[in-house]
Amino acid sequence: MKTLNSLRKDALDIFHAGLHAVDPDTCMKKHISLPEKNLLQTGERCYDLSQFKNIYIIGFGKASGFMALTIEKLFPERIRTGIVNVRYGYKAPCKIINIYEAGHPVPDHAGRKGTDEIVRLLQHTEEDDLVFCLISGGGSALFELPCDGITLKEIQDITEMFLKCGARIDEMNTVRKHISQVKGGQLAKICKGKIISFILSDVTNDAPGTIASGPTSPDDSTFLDCKKILQKYELFQKIPSSIREHIQKGLDGKVQETPKATDPVFRKVHNVIIGNNRTALYASYKKAGELGYNPFILSSCITGEAKEVAKVFGAIAKEICSSGNPAKRPACIIAGGETTVTVKGNGLGGRSQEFTLSAAMEIDGLENTVILCAGTDGTDGNTEAAGAIADSFTITSAKQGHMNPEAYLTDNNSYSFFRLTDNLIITGPTKTNVMDIILLLVD
Amino acid sequence: MKTLNSLRKDALDIFHAGLHAVDPDTCMKKHISLPEKNLLQTGERCYDLSQFKNIYIIGFGKASGFMALTIEKLFPERIRTGIVNVRYGYKAPCKIINIYEAGHPVPDHAGRKGTDEIVRLLQHTEEDDLVFCLISGGGSALFELPCDGITLKEIQDITEMFLKCGARIDEMNTVRKHISQVKGGQLAKICKGKIISFILSDVTNDAPGTIASGPTSPDDSTFLDCKKILQKYELFQKIPSSIREHIQKGLDGKVQETPKATDPVFRKVHNVIIGNNRTALYASYKKAGELGYNPFILSSCITGEAKEVAKVFGAIAKEICSSGNPAKRPACIIAGGETTVTVKGNGLGGRSQEFTLSAAMEIDGLENTVILCAGTDGTDGNTEAAGAIADSFTITSAKQGHMNPEAYLTDNNSYSFFRLTDNLIITGPTKTNVMDIILLLVD
Repeated sequence: MKTLNSLRKDALDIFHAGLHAVDPDTCMKKHISLPEKNLLQTGERCYDLSQFKNIYIIGFGKASGFMALTIEKLFPERIRTGIVNVRYGYKAPCKIINIYEAGHPVPDHAGRKGTDEIVRLLQHTEEDDLVFCLISGGGSALFELPCDGITLKEIQDITEMFLKCGARIDEMNTVRKHISQVKGGQLAKICKGKIISFILSDVTNDAPGTIASGPTSPDDSTFLDCKKILQKYELFQKIPSSIREHIQKGLDGKVQETPKATDPVFRKVHNVIIGNNRTALYASYKKAGELGYNPFILSSCITGEAKEVAKVFGAIAKEICSSGNPAKRPACIIAGGETTVTVKGNGLGGRSQEFTLSAAMEIDGLENTVILCAGTDGTDGNTEAAGAIADSFTITSAKQGHMNPEAYLTDNNSYSFFRLTDNLIITGPTKTNVMDIILLLVD
Repeated sequence: MKTLNSLRKDALDIFHAGLHAVDPDTCMKKHISLPEKNLLQTGERCYDLSQFKNIYIIGFGKASGFMALTIEKLFPERIRTGIVNVRYGYKAPCKIINIYEAGHPVPDHAGRKGTDEIVRLLQHTEEDDLVFCLISGGGSALFELPCDGITLKEIQDITEMFLKCGARIDEMNTVRKHISQVKGGQLAKICKGKIISFILSDVTNDAPGTIASGPTSPDDSTFLDCKKILQKYELFQKIPSSIREHIQKGLDGKVQETPKATDPVFRKVHNVIIGNNRTALYASYKKAGELGYNPFILSSCITGEAKEVAKVFGAIAKEICSSGNPAKRPACIIAGGETTVTVKGNGLGGRSQEFTLSAAMEIDGLENTVILCAGTDGTDGNTEAAGAIADSFTITSAKQGHMNPEAYLTDNNSYSFFRLTDNLIITGPTKTNVMDIILLLVD
């Protein structure tokens, strides 16, 4: 039997193995090959780069800077120019492509400025140009040009409202698509050239239309969906009036819908998923096996309220301890996805830390058990931590130190709990983003 | 590939196989043998019945009537008398033992009357008497004698409050133990004779102290815990003043605590768990294998908010469809436990139906997938259904019929949804109770 400390070390190693597999450079190189000069192969398609007049690079998202760096190194002589918006701290050392750092998850003026430049670049493209579009999670906030009549401040306000009400990211993005000039396939409408989008997926179904609000993909949502979502969270009367009016115009047919799958514009677009959460989980699976665990992938599509979903992992830990189901010890349950937190308290934390705190309470007092949850992008909520790790002694130990874990959870203050108990996982910006990794180790 | 209809039929068969394994008679006979006349063996212990002057039977809980019937048939000549409280509709055809039907989950006067008689019976026992105590889930409501100064009406009121606020059953029972004269080990204090308790477990950890509020088990909770729980759900100021005053007396040391593990009274008590949720899951596992599925027990300890926990099962279904993890198709994921519902709407339903509705929304549009969740006791919330079944076409079909599944979920109206779509599982009283069974079939 391993000690709790070596179990914790293993959990961190398994997490980092997952993280490494979704490094943008690794993922890009797996999906691009240059079998001959001027020949680019991706998946089953081959492109003769010599047939294009100009090649441009655009991009937006947490990982997009380093995706750009890879492509810049592959054929620097062919790139005319490029602009990529990334989150603050996620800048890559590109030489040809301009990288703009901007705000996330709430869009800011820097992001707006970069978007303006990308749009201007696209407006000047011709039919014989080729645009590589590097899309990754976070792109929705980092690439934003509001519809006429709506200000960036109003986009910021509605984003804040969504982040607080516990809405799903796809719901937030349905609305974002309909109040933006570039999301939901509208980027493809602006560009005259051919588009190849390389996409690092941060959504559970890998649908290009939902990653970074799908700027180069058909959008099957409608203004009516927007209204329903806003009503569901009782936000329709609370949002800025300009946004409400714009949605009403859409409902009345006075503003154009986002382009749908039948739109011929998508014939010139090729979307390629280069990596996703499952890519990370498989690498974690491999590493866990190497470290002697019985590994087991539960799902890469975990969603739901973080503290409730965490209880299922607690239940699995208890079952492993008492009956050896669903995996024999030493077991490593691997999962991924993106939970949500309905904020009711005033504390600091994110979904991964809240998940870990709730799970820690469930595994308290079990035999050797460790739980880890962290964002592959290196951030969790509005904190500098990626997530947290806890073991079956964390809660007891905190209580002995006169902390009340339940109160921290109720106050959505998981960050403070794990900072005080020295259980934060801090990676800094990881240059990538494929949602979160959850690990449960039972020895 | 099976049709959705045959998948649904299989799910029901697998559920019923689980149910059959936790039949009180089956469970009792597995744990009691009579190797010789007057010799009763249970587990590793043997009792010479001839050494006891009188043998009495008492009991309370949904399954306790049929547990009594088994024991009555085993040695009818030795039973002096017996009284067992069961839920309305759960009566067994006993000849010697008196079965009282009473209210559940809110205790009523019939339960109170039966409890009075059981207490009177116990008060007349002597040291050389033997009492078989038949305990099963629901016993907490069915066996109730409030502390002095507290009325049954006040117990009813606080029970209703607990049922509505989303508190865990163990939290509700901690409070119940401290405002009752018989719960939390206090029954053992009243009885002078030897006690053998046969317990059909309806809790996730099988702790005798938590089943039916543990009348024959040590209680490790305190008046302080009660106050904390009531404060957690903001109920302390709302409960009847007599209860608040009683708890305050306990905190001030003016009322005795429930007996703890060191109390010598428990030397004369033998608690035997005769079946639990896992007993059912193993039988379901066996049946699923016979029907050609790759079966897989996730956990028998599932807890958490029903509609959130359901999303994890949706995530597992999606993963099975897209990657074959964690089980290859045809897969049958088996789980059990007891979720909770925080009631916010005005609809009808229980945790199993709410779980199924939420899961149905997650599996909507997947390939051949079926979800089932039902209570082994045959009831779910305040409805006549045990639970519900849904498949990957249920939601689409409901929407085509102009139903809004999300609205039903928000209104906690899962019963109406499944009644209208003809997806209720109705078993009637099952005579048993080991929490709920969850089945996810993916072909």
